[in-house]
Amino acid sequence: MLMGKKKHNSRLIVEPRDFTFGETAEDALLLDCGKKLKNVNIRYEVYGELNAAGDNAILILHALTGDAHVAGYYREEDEKEKPGWWDGMVGKGKPIDIDKYFVVCSNIIGGCSGSTGPRSQNPETGKLYNMDFPIITIADMVRAQDRLMQHLKIEKWLGVIGGSMGGMQALEWLRLYPEKLQCALAIATTPRLSPQSIAFNWVGREAIKTDPKWLDGNYSDNVPNRGLSTARMLAHITYLSDESMKRKFGRVLQKSKNYSFDFNRDFAVESYLEHQGSRFVERFDANSYLYITRAMDYFDLSSATGGNLSKALAGVKGHVLVVSFTSDWLFPTSQSRELVRALLNNNVNVSSCEIESPYGHDAFLLEIDILGKMISDFLRIQQEVSRNA
Amino acid sequence: MLMGKKKHNSRLIVEPRDFTFGETAEDALLLDCGKKLKNVNIRYEVYGELNAAGDNAILILHALTGDAHVAGYYREEDEKEKPGWWDGMVGKGKPIDIDKYFVVCSNIIGGCSGSTGPRSQNPETGKLYNMDFPIITIADMVRAQDRLMQHLKIEKWLGVIGGSMGGMQALEWLRLYPEKLQCALAIATTPRLSPQSIAFNWVGREAIKTDPKWLDGNYSDNVPNRGLSTARMLAHITYLSDESMKRKFGRVLQKSKNYSFDFNRDFAVESYLEHQGSRFVERFDANSYLYITRAMDYFDLSSATGGNLSKALAGVKGHVLVVSFTSDWLFPTSQSRELVRALLNNNVNVSSCEIESPYGHDAFLLEIDILGKMISDFLRIQQEVSRNA
Repeated sequence: MLMGKKKHNSRLIVEPRDFTFGETAEDALLLDCGKKLKNVNIRYEVYGELNAAGDNAILILHALTGDAHVAGYYREEDEKEKPGWWDGMVGKGKPIDIDKYFVVCSNIIGGCSGSTGPRSQNPETGKLYNMDFPIITIADMVRAQDRLMQHLKIEKWLGVIGGSMGGMQALEWLRLYPEKLQCALAIATTPRLSPQSIAFNWVGREAIKTDPKWLDGNYSDNVPNRGLSTARMLAHITYLSDESMKRKFGRVLQKSKNYSFDFNRDFAVESYLEHQGSRFVERFDANSYLYITRAMDYFDLSSATGGNLSKALAGVKGHVLVVSFTSDWLFPTSQSRELVRALLNNNVNVSSCEIESPYGHDAFLLEIDILGKMISDFLRIQQEVSRNA
Repeated sequence: MLMGKKKHNSRLIVEPRDFTFGETAEDALLLDCGKKLKNVNIRYEVYGELNAAGDNAILILHALTGDAHVAGYYREEDEKEKPGWWDGMVGKGKPIDIDKYFVVCSNIIGGCSGSTGPRSQNPETGKLYNMDFPIITIADMVRAQDRLMQHLKIEKWLGVIGGSMGGMQALEWLRLYPEKLQCALAIATTPRLSPQSIAFNWVGREAIKTDPKWLDGNYSDNVPNRGLSTARMLAHITYLSDESMKRKFGRVLQKSKNYSFDFNRDFAVESYLEHQGSRFVERFDANSYLYITRAMDYFDLSSATGGNLSKALAGVKGHVLVVSFTSDWLFPTSQSRELVRALLNNNVNVSSCEIESPYGHDAFLLEIDILGKMISDFLRIQQEVSRNA
């Protein structure tokens, strides 16, 4: 291999696209809360090409703070530009190979990366929605994705794939549109948010609301960065494992050999958290954070069937791959197991795997090697199954 | 047993006491940070009587948000008054039986329940210390307790006992004053605070500092309750286990059968947290919370011996009982094991036990039956050992 300047012209270049719907009351998106969302924009990206048979389309679903930019770059040459959030997974010759598959990823509604969310203009008032934005659910996000699917003239997804909150969306796809997918891959996720996670979300939202700049959601350019950063730092702790934090930081001090005996960041872990917090607020919106975490709180696949998860999944047709990670204490394997049992109760063709990893919940973003192998094999087999059906 | 009105005159009535030292520079408390704390008040309570041999004195060390009021009541009749924080453990005929033992418990320095802390008057300026209060450590708390010990003319503790941060103090007693105790009981604790806990503390402090009422610590009566409440709610999650939250709350809704589709408390777990937060701010001070969590961050028994825990404990003479709980993920058994190994490396007489419990870290306050039996047996045997020595 030649060492030297990185060859930028080999970059995968993508362009964000927009799809708008719901200009009439009839076409508006009916939400779980009973309200209708009008003038909905969906920011999305596509990779690869839809084949003639239309059987190679894959929908990737992003997590809480992700976006449509799953892989590649926007610019040919920009040393500072970082690739999409799952760039190791999606691309030419990568596990989700865009030479084989047509990959779609869209920003969720409620988000702040192009799709309609609380910082969008409310068509009724001409002002920003802010806290007048309706409460959305994971199912609502999926309903919006279904509109995009129709727009793209895709009849059936080969696979819907998501980690964390993306996995919740994959499960809602299974429940709401069982005919529209060949398989679903639910990674590091849960069939219902646990009270512990609801509690963490509550505290994160409190941190945002306590920020004097939040102004009941009506902030101007002077955004409530401190509160949002605190919420992010809290969430970030839950994405790592005790083990990985010990390996990565231990009790190492940032600057000196001795304690500074003050309240500034002293430990490496404090600096890391602060860094994560301040990087996050550059790209994320406080009100979106409130709405999306609330959507997660409300996520319970079995809520429409009186808590009966098996019943909720009775209509599932596709094959399912469920993956969890040993050190993920946010969505531990026990929660995946509950999902697997409910699927088996319905004689669904389900595969499951618990991957040994020290990285905690974040493992779904980091364990690309083993997870990628698993995903690429599963997709290949599913495509064969669908072609032989 | 006769049913009927509670017989209040059987209440154990205690009176808080004060001990003041450090009026001269010589007598002041030299802290780990290098500063001296003058005019130190220690609020404490005593239960039972010191026997003639002076071999029945027990020091109980409280956790982060505890105080000197370990057991009993202040008033003969007050339906609303709650007993001390470990009332099931300490009292007549209870596991730490005050008919046998002379029990002492003092509020830590840095606290807000009578002992000198950030909301005390700075003798140099005549104003409240607030953020001019020096950073204190767990060892500093113990040094202040040693002054109280001298004041009470106790030569040797039969036992020093603490859970959580109280356990850290028990370990510092072992390290700093090995001659002054017969045994130490370290419950649900750790020999050094983990990076995960440092991270949680950082986020909790951020929540307090983000509160506009905090005013860099110089708040008046209009205290930063919201930030302090958020910090408490966060900490509270870490005191419970995922399991106990599922048992206690699940995803049960507070008021209605259906989601309210807003940001108010909807889930029982949210109501519970809010309740915990608002009860807490009635009795605790925000600046104290900052200082005490910082003391915990800085707690590493091995910091003076270059990270070598065995070396740190080389001088230990007393017997040690180490107790952990299966579902405690804040100070898990793995951390207790590290402590036990270091003590064994020094041929210390150490007993350890992991108690099966679903209650998480809070188990040290809740598992009174099994923990009480263990503590009472250990103390009885230790008293025999000391008398036969």
